[in-house]
Amino acid sequence: MKEYLFTTCLETRDYECDLQGVVNNANYQHYLEYTRHKWLQSRGQSFQQWHEKGIDAMVSEINIKYKSPLHGQEEFLSCLNLHREGARFIFEQDIYRKADMKLCIQATVTIVSVVNGRLSKGDEIAFLLEDVQ
Amino acid sequence: MKEYLFTTCLETRDYECDLQGVVNNANYQHYLEYTRHKWLQSRGQSFQQWHEKGIDAMVSEINIKYKSPLHGQEEFLSCLNLHREGARFIFEQDIYRKADMKLCIQATVTIVSVVNGRLSKGDEIAFLLEDVQ
Amino acid sequence: MKEYLFTTCLETRDYECDLQGVVNNANYQHYLEYTRHKWLQSRGQSFQQWHEKGIDAMVSEINIKYKSPLHGQEEFLSCLNLHREGARFIFEQDIYRKADMKLCIQATVTIVSVVNGRLSKGDEIAFLLEDVQ
Amino acid sequence: MKEYLFTTCLETRDYECDLQGVVNNANYQHYLEYTRHKWLQSRGQSFQQWHEKGIDAMVSEINIKYKSPLHGQEEFLSCLNLHREGARFIFEQDIYRKADMKLCIQATVTIVSVVNGRLSKGDEIAFLLEDVQ
Repeated sequence: MKEYLFTTCLETRDYECDLQGVVNNANYQHYLEYTRHKWLQSRGQSFQQWHEKGIDAMVSEINIKYKSPLHGQEEFLSCLNLHREGARFIFEQDIYRKADMKLCIQATVTIVSVVNGRLSKGDEIAFLLEDVQ
Repeated sequence: MKEYLFTTCLETRDYECDLQGVVNNANYQHYLEYTRHKWLQSRGQSFQQWHEKGIDAMVSEINIKYKSPLHGQEEFLSCLNLHREGARFIFEQDIYRKADMKLCIQATVTIVSVVNGRLSKGDEIAFLLEDVQ
Repeated sequence: MKEYLFTTCLETRDYECDLQGVVNNANYQHYLEYTRHKWLQSRGQSFQQWHEKGIDAMVSEINIKYKSPLHGQEEFLSCLNLHREGARFIFEQDIYRKADMKLCIQATVTIVSVVNGRLSKGDEIAFLLEDVQ
Repeated sequence: MKEYLFTTCLETRDYECDLQGVVNNANYQHYLEYTRHKWLQSRGQSFQQWHEKGIDAMVSEINIKYKSPLHGQEEFLSCLNLHREGARFIFEQDIYRKADMKLCIQATVTIVSVVNGRLSKGDEIAFLLEDVQ
């Protein structure tokens, strides 16, 4: 397994599965969002707090490669790395089934910062995150 | 069919179905909420507007009897009646499969009004709805 | 706090909250379903297994009293009790916010058993659950 | 506006919005899926039918560019084009707010065909769709 900045262990829920008996594609986006929020929480911060300061972190682009489906009541590891490219913060997020460490999805999520309604250069987010270059 | 104050025709979506091939129980609550919002919209109002005036309509109790399940890509009629019992506004909401008018669910949804954070007697909502006694 | 047959600790996710900043009413039904599945899992069983044996546990009625809302990223305890009334299995399910043990919802969920497409007297479920009288 | 193979008019629902008052990112994936199903339905076919014939159309990759958010109770046009690249079927899917035809998202969804559990060359899907080259 690659090295990651943050990893959390989650479990699928039956209501997230669809007719085909596997997790519906859209629900992975929920897992990815939840993982970013947990990571931020682990650093004592939250998008909610940022919002109250006038800083809105917005997803501008998402790319998901579906490799292998998760089923109901399966544990999985949700992992992320992060780097900055100018005004954009790029999250590389992978999900592995815990039982056999099979790669389920590979995602790239691009976040931009909107300050008081205008796209910013991202320095206020880099400042809050300190070590993200 | 009974008489109703408001009826709207909707369609199930495949992603609302679960492993058993039928609409997941929780999604009916979405249909019921959406139907109340459509009804209010048909009267030129919205919960959002009320919220901005400091009036929050909150669900205090819900009862759903599941009679017959809906499947994917099925049209259904979502119907409502409404009466007031003191501070409580009682929505009687029924859903019928359109193809054969089979009753799918029968629901009773109780709404109360919270004005500036305190439970009200409901007169401001009765006023906005005029004909609800 | 009352005594319960089963209790699990969960956490709300931001995407489960709606415009009003609180968990959307329908999502509690997901929490309730997930809790029943976790309880069954703790006994080495699953609705999926039952389904494969031709036994379908179906929700026939649900009643939820909304007492106090949960917000994003809040931990809560989801608790259940169960008793049998003839062909019906009655789950009493309560949810408490963990921080102050405030009661959030009180729910009663009625399950019936459908065996090979016909409503049963429930003995096959009582047998699987053994100690439920 | 570009030319599209298929366009359907939908409306956002309040429960699809999150804390920020806009449609949650994951819900656009539901809209995209629903649009593909409606398009197939308009041609007298369904993924369900294909599944019963042993043909499973699976999303292998999705890319979404978020341009401008939708709010509650807004109508939008969901449009699609489709072309084939070998074993892959590429849906170009755009969503526009109806009121001002502002582009909300641009998505590329790649579908592959799995026949009896094995990745196919896609000829059976091209046959069912006839005019897709």
